[in-house]
Amino acid sequence: MKISYQGIEGSFSHRTAMRHFGANCEYIGLPTFEEAFRAVEGGRADLALLPIENTLAGTIFETLDLLNQGALQIIGETDTRIEHSLLVLPGAKNIKKVLSHPKALAQCTRFFQEHPEIQAVPHYDTAGAALDVAKMKDPSCAAIANCAAAEIYGLEVLSQGIEDHPENYTRFLLLARQGTEGKKCTLHFTLEHCPGSLGKVLTVIGRFGNLTQIVSRPLIGHPYEYGFFVDFVGPTPLLLEELKKMTKTMKILGRYDGL
Amino acid sequence: MKISYQGIEGSFSHRTAMRHFGANCEYIGLPTFEEAFRAVEGGRADLALLPIENTLAGTIFETLDLLNQGALQIIGETDTRIEHSLLVLPGAKNIKKVLSHPKALAQCTRFFQEHPEIQAVPHYDTAGAALDVAKMKDPSCAAIANCAAAEIYGLEVLSQGIEDHPENYTRFLLLARQGTEGKKCTLHFTLEHCPGSLGKVLTVIGRFGNLTQIVSRPLIGHPYEYGFFVDFVGPTPLLLEELKKMTKTMKILGRYDGL
Repeated sequence: MKISYQGIEGSFSHRTAMRHFGANCEYIGLPTFEEAFRAVEGGRADLALLPIENTLAGTIFETLDLLNQGALQIIGETDTRIEHSLLVLPGAKNIKKVLSHPKALAQCTRFFQEHPEIQAVPHYDTAGAALDVAKMKDPSCAAIANCAAAEIYGLEVLSQGIEDHPENYTRFLLLARQGTEGKKCTLHFTLEHCPGSLGKVLTVIGRFGNLTQIVSRPLIGHPYEYGFFVDFVGPTPLLLEELKKMTKTMKILGRYDGL
Repeated sequence: MKISYQGIEGSFSHRTAMRHFGANCEYIGLPTFEEAFRAVEGGRADLALLPIENTLAGTIFETLDLLNQGALQIIGETDTRIEHSLLVLPGAKNIKKVLSHPKALAQCTRFFQEHPEIQAVPHYDTAGAALDVAKMKDPSCAAIANCAAAEIYGLEVLSQGIEDHPENYTRFLLLARQGTEGKKCTLHFTLEHCPGSLGKVLTVIGRFGNLTQIVSRPLIGHPYEYGFFVDFVGPTPLLLEELKKMTKTMKILGRYDGL
């Protein structure tokens, strides 16, 4: 089995995929969400694992837009606790610079307030920051990444769990060319431009199922008109039939369960 | 009158503010959305003009989050057509590098496909890219920015309107310490965790007013619970009273009209 993800070895995506599929799969790390998605569409990989939402930063629109425009179906979901650790060269103590993704740096503001002598340096990727610290061999440079990256790149964990909010989770979706069945459903739909139409759709979902998330995205070429992504539990054939009648366009992005 | 905005002279924000308030105001360009917001809260500026939404990229969450946590009210809104132009040093023809904000580069993919010899270089800001091209004095470097930046920084417009989609607008909000009245309203609310609650709220808004936008944002510390921002037309006292009863928390972020 081949599984594509965005990032490099030791990233939260890679670690999450490893947790579910173990050491006997091939993991294909690619630079962008789109490349990881297209790898499955084109048959180079069997499954893609992409992040869809973080409990501090919100929805990851790029994944939603790829799902809406592309040919893959969601076949499962899983959560990963995001714990940020300070990774250093073995024995290093006097840290002056810390490299990490801007989102990770922003999630560790307390650490930087307590260490005003340390400079935060934006980097394209958390695991990539760990790799670069290992390569540079400068003991005054550290990375903020997950502690699995320490082992992979030969670094030491100087402090674990330095994020401001412990309630920091990322939800990942597992994508495949063939859909499945499950208790949860993700839909994209558009509506005729008439008052109250969205409220009616959500009321119907609330009556027959349980809405868990709604996201609006602009329709390109139609300023200030929106398409909607909804997650809900309980996609019965009757409910889906009803929603099809109430919407202008509707696409089922997947019916799935937790991994 | 003092008006704060994010960016530097010649940015889309600065240009939009100038269009409405003319040459007799003082414009305070600041590096971040938060600094522009706090400048009004703290009294250093009278008004802030911040982007809230782009018709290609979607909602600008930072502005929404500042509104929800901060003390300012929306007192007006306006749209600016985003037109990207290629700005060069006077007389320059053989361009090898083009600097701009990653979002602007991504909105000009056709231009880069037609000119494969030109390298796209990410920069923190569109107008800042124009300023840097003017400073570097390297005729092989150009910037993608709005054409007003050409005049300000002594550059020439080599091509105008190089964006892929002409339907590219950014909506800006005008913020002040004191609220006003108007036909449009922006609210933030949270709900009790029970099925159908969001549908009921939107149905009530649809019955008495007209919902124009809904955005969900994670509640920090409560994984997979959300707060909602809605825009709607027709905020009568009766409707606001009704919504207050249906929600767990509700904050009016402004009642306003177009500028």
